[in-house]
Amino acid sequence: MTVRVGVLGATGAVGQRLIQQIDPHPDFELAALTASSASTGKSYREAAKWRVDSPIPEDVADMTVVATDPDEVPDDVDLLFSSLPSSVGEAVEPEFIEAGYVMSSNSSNFRTDEDIPLTIPEVNADHLGLIEVQRDERGWDGALVKNPNCSTITMVPPLAALDEAFGLTDVRVSTLQAVSGAGYSGVTSMEIIDNAIPHIGGEEKKMETESRKLLGEFDGAEVQWNDAEVAASCNRIPTLDGHLENVWADTAEDVTVEEAAEALREYPSIDLPSSPDQLIKVFEEPDRPQPRLDRNQSDGMGIAVGGIQETENGLQFNCLAHNTIRGAAGASVLNGELLLEEGYL
Amino acid sequence: MTVRVGVLGATGAVGQRLIQQIDPHPDFELAALTASSASTGKSYREAAKWRVDSPIPEDVADMTVVATDPDEVPDDVDLLFSSLPSSVGEAVEPEFIEAGYVMSSNSSNFRTDEDIPLTIPEVNADHLGLIEVQRDERGWDGALVKNPNCSTITMVPPLAALDEAFGLTDVRVSTLQAVSGAGYSGVTSMEIIDNAIPHIGGEEKKMETESRKLLGEFDGAEVQWNDAEVAASCNRIPTLDGHLENVWADTAEDVTVEEAAEALREYPSIDLPSSPDQLIKVFEEPDRPQPRLDRNQSDGMGIAVGGIQETENGLQFNCLAHNTIRGAAGASVLNGELLLEEGYL
Amino acid sequence: MTVRVGVLGATGAVGQRLIQQIDPHPDFELAALTASSASTGKSYREAAKWRVDSPIPEDVADMTVVATDPDEVPDDVDLLFSSLPSSVGEAVEPEFIEAGYVMSSNSSNFRTDEDIPLTIPEVNADHLGLIEVQRDERGWDGALVKNPNCSTITMVPPLAALDEAFGLTDVRVSTLQAVSGAGYSGVTSMEIIDNAIPHIGGEEKKMETESRKLLGEFDGAEVQWNDAEVAASCNRIPTLDGHLENVWADTAEDVTVEEAAEALREYPSIDLPSSPDQLIKVFEEPDRPQPRLDRNQSDGMGIAVGGIQETENGLQFNCLAHNTIRGAAGASVLNGELLLEEGYL
Amino acid sequence: MTVRVGVLGATGAVGQRLIQQIDPHPDFELAALTASSASTGKSYREAAKWRVDSPIPEDVADMTVVATDPDEVPDDVDLLFSSLPSSVGEAVEPEFIEAGYVMSSNSSNFRTDEDIPLTIPEVNADHLGLIEVQRDERGWDGALVKNPNCSTITMVPPLAALDEAFGLTDVRVSTLQAVSGAGYSGVTSMEIIDNAIPHIGGEEKKMETESRKLLGEFDGAEVQWNDAEVAASCNRIPTLDGHLENVWADTAEDVTVEEAAEALREYPSIDLPSSPDQLIKVFEEPDRPQPRLDRNQSDGMGIAVGGIQETENGLQFNCLAHNTIRGAAGASVLNGELLLEEGYL
Repeated sequence: MTVRVGVLGATGAVGQRLIQQIDPHPDFELAALTASSASTGKSYREAAKWRVDSPIPEDVADMTVVATDPDEVPDDVDLLFSSLPSSVGEAVEPEFIEAGYVMSSNSSNFRTDEDIPLTIPEVNADHLGLIEVQRDERGWDGALVKNPNCSTITMVPPLAALDEAFGLTDVRVSTLQAVSGAGYSGVTSMEIIDNAIPHIGGEEKKMETESRKLLGEFDGAEVQWNDAEVAASCNRIPTLDGHLENVWADTAEDVTVEEAAEALREYPSIDLPSSPDQLIKVFEEPDRPQPRLDRNQSDGMGIAVGGIQETENGLQFNCLAHNTIRGAAGASVLNGELLLEEGYL
Repeated sequence: MTVRVGVLGATGAVGQRLIQQIDPHPDFELAALTASSASTGKSYREAAKWRVDSPIPEDVADMTVVATDPDEVPDDVDLLFSSLPSSVGEAVEPEFIEAGYVMSSNSSNFRTDEDIPLTIPEVNADHLGLIEVQRDERGWDGALVKNPNCSTITMVPPLAALDEAFGLTDVRVSTLQAVSGAGYSGVTSMEIIDNAIPHIGGEEKKMETESRKLLGEFDGAEVQWNDAEVAASCNRIPTLDGHLENVWADTAEDVTVEEAAEALREYPSIDLPSSPDQLIKVFEEPDRPQPRLDRNQSDGMGIAVGGIQETENGLQFNCLAHNTIRGAAGASVLNGELLLEEGYL
Repeated sequence: MTVRVGVLGATGAVGQRLIQQIDPHPDFELAALTASSASTGKSYREAAKWRVDSPIPEDVADMTVVATDPDEVPDDVDLLFSSLPSSVGEAVEPEFIEAGYVMSSNSSNFRTDEDIPLTIPEVNADHLGLIEVQRDERGWDGALVKNPNCSTITMVPPLAALDEAFGLTDVRVSTLQAVSGAGYSGVTSMEIIDNAIPHIGGEEKKMETESRKLLGEFDGAEVQWNDAEVAASCNRIPTLDGHLENVWADTAEDVTVEEAAEALREYPSIDLPSSPDQLIKVFEEPDRPQPRLDRNQSDGMGIAVGGIQETENGLQFNCLAHNTIRGAAGASVLNGELLLEEGYL
Repeated sequence: MTVRVGVLGATGAVGQRLIQQIDPHPDFELAALTASSASTGKSYREAAKWRVDSPIPEDVADMTVVATDPDEVPDDVDLLFSSLPSSVGEAVEPEFIEAGYVMSSNSSNFRTDEDIPLTIPEVNADHLGLIEVQRDERGWDGALVKNPNCSTITMVPPLAALDEAFGLTDVRVSTLQAVSGAGYSGVTSMEIIDNAIPHIGGEEKKMETESRKLLGEFDGAEVQWNDAEVAASCNRIPTLDGHLENVWADTAEDVTVEEAAEALREYPSIDLPSSPDQLIKVFEEPDRPQPRLDRNQSDGMGIAVGGIQETENGLQFNCLAHNTIRGAAGASVLNGELLLEEGYL
């Protein structure tokens, strides 16, 4: 049975990726597209300047874009994906949940609120239990689930594998992030050609807080955040897609490269349509993963790790994920699949 | 009085930058250019494929390139600059020193040898005292001084300032390095367009060892290496010039952002022609320094620092230097100036 | 029935693309891989530094690379694809043809020889008749077919459509070519980042001669070259794949934009596995085709045209094709399919 | 005696280049900076996001930005430079001229109006005579002079040299234009990394009309446009600065490469501070000029030509100029110098 879904903020960079993910999806059927008032009433083809490097799906192209308003979305839509700007999402998402919609959102608002599940299905699917908490506390009929920021999601699966096996104490991460992470117009060409920018507003804080919530324990009532120290340094570089990260993970126990590689490779995936068979791919070649060569593995949903080395206090390694697929649209779709699997739809 | 100088390995990327630095130099006069046998006997114009973005100096263009052999270099040349490939340098540099030449070398061979001074004049000019040790031990008439690797030189001045003021305990550094650091043909376009490579062979080790030697104490006989832990993670990105680095510097004493900024700004420069008036420029803007905007400050000889933040154990900051000027050719020229100043010529 | 095929020069950039095309092919089965002596005896995985952005096919990875010598290729191989350097191809390709092999070659040698068919199957499949001529003249048992240069192949299908409909008199073309056209190491990053190079050795001549042969008439004995004037100006730009070309096509008859678009859209394709259903896609949007967005249409085998305008003497338009697929490996595979279809295997 | 000057639209990309040009100018002194209402009342340092790769001049940084209104500009300002958006310029520039100001404008409005001089001082300084015509016709006290579009200005000096010597009949030009030509935010990074865009709105028309006006004859009353056919095809590529153009120039007389090179080299410059000693530099190397290597020659005010070849009907060649210096800010400053020289201030 197919679930009818809607996309809030359908014309942006992540919105386009959402449509690319949902259009061929076995369980989801696109039934509503919303955008800001400049696009309302237009066909999606007119409203969106389509820039994904596969053609715009023909049936989606002819859909009419509606306003981002619960009254404009058909009642038989069961699941909403949100890629609204966070300032918009903060105001509008609760209106939809109050109206009874179940929503998987990529927007950054509410991610660290106590009663909002922030989930990567392979890592902390049980945090979905917070939906009961949020319904109790907020009187919501619907449900709201968030996926983390694209830079956070890249490192958390390997950190979760290492934490489980060896105990994390201290994490430092330096990122080399692709321009698509800032949206279509976020980084101008004059800013980034032959250049790098050692600052992405708010990003370091997101990595430091979201990762500790994701790696935390849900005790049935609340999430006890992981108490590892996490410090991030974020950089924008001239790549289109794929965030590469250098991580130092200090561990409670001593660990060898081989033990780490094994823990990473054997970290379990989850049986959902968009989740890869093997979640974490470990490269032996010291110069991998690389954004252009490795971002598309497992249809952009894989996490790649390489360059594992022992340090004084633990390990250092590099990790990579496709920031607009695994780090945004695909992450939301995967959370939607989890909501379906767990009976929330 | 002008010193007649020669450049060994004059046709490569660093060799061209050396010529660009030396040609207008107040104290140095180009008197010999050497290269491999393919170039011998040709005019420099023919032998070098000039790619620096200022024109080839006309008088240099007409000089004849000779073999990299002490017999081919005129006797009245007093100072040699070497940008030979390290495998060549290892064999050939000693021949020149034995023949009595004084050499400032950018090549990586011998850098961590006990009796070879590895110097950044503003940081550890006193290590030049090792020349007496090397003459004693090796029976050399000449002298050999090395400058560090381009990625090392970018972070060592700020680390020296912080070590002096607050005591360094642990350093982790992640680099975003320009393609020119690999030489003209070192990185192909297909490797790096829309990409980053999280590995530069041997580079992490160089940063970890050279920095500890540079920050060490010379006691008149040998250098006691600094005992801070240093761990590096090196990346190549699609920038032409300018290495950007994210540094975590754990310190023995607590330190505020303001104290750190002051220690960096007030770290003394040295009175040599190529040294900037202020060695370390500290940016207030969180998104600076950036390679394209800041690599040319102080004619490419400045060190730029920004993004200073307090952490649990000390500080994190970003630093930047022009890798083929401050990090290579200019570093060698500056060491040449120090040799002249200190009476070794 | 599957045809067993071999790839000569299998480790290079085009060789890798050939393997990517042939591995899933319905009619072809990889049975031999050759390379230069440095690779002989190694597994393909070891010999090739695989850089295509899909994984190396596992069964191919374990094949052993042999020397480029007819004695080293198994006798039951029926078809060879050659992506040898042209200087090597000139010496070695005839040895294979003399030994009875049928070869589809991407190498530039022999392309304008009178008895060598230079074919784009959708445009001039009948030129394959030259095989009889070459067998008569050279006493060959096998057969040799060439595909044109990647920059030529991009413009010839639209020129053929316009020539047939309106008669070409004069062609001027300016190219914006991707770095992959020069092979993996052909363009260094220092040459091309923030730059363009208005010269590609020999390329203009190839475009001017090959296009006139391709557009010529085969009368059963020889090809009468098309007598349109063709002048080319070739540039390298910082794109990875996809050659974009600005064309002025002066025509004998007056032609409107609509008539031109119709002639292009209706130009027939051919019924071979690698040929697209519609050969030439015509964009209405004035800013298309673009290399990154449009190079992969029809699995990289389509020709895209846009920006059609009327001029004083005919038309101007832009065209685009994927240079290492439609312009090299895919072009060779398509010629192989034509050889199979036409009974030469 | 120093002329006090103002810059209209001082915060944009061209405005910043104007300030970089004017600040060290021997004859001009910055006395007024205007911008849109968002910047009014702020210091220039605050109002402009300075992105030129030399530091912001300290004295300029502290100037207060005023509204783009004749009442806000001090009366003792004698010359205005305008880099307003053309839609703004169309409304506002006449207000300043009516108020008596003399203006050198880079904005595209009015460029092809009959009574507005469009000048490149080395090419058609005599067109300044149109100022009398415009004063008569419009009742203006001040004067308005325009410089051409950046892509036009690159090719017109070589075309003027060839027209004078051999007679131009037909010109076709294909451009490879840098992103800075579209202003700081004009081209996003996602649009242009690993890509090229074969369309720049209105640009082809500008090249076709402006060039014919520039190459026309001023008879004392009006400019008789040159009657050569000019057709342009414009492309944006991932370069920061420097427009490269492939030109076919058909000529009335036969011409050899040597004759063409001589006519280009000997085309006279003009004796103004910003004009280079030699206007057109002719490269012998077939792969020059290149944007990154050659855009800064003669402080960015030179025109570089290379790749000259004979064709059936004349010549083909490549040309290059720095688009925001020679093609915009420097062009305006040079026109300002001409106005001063000719006594209009």
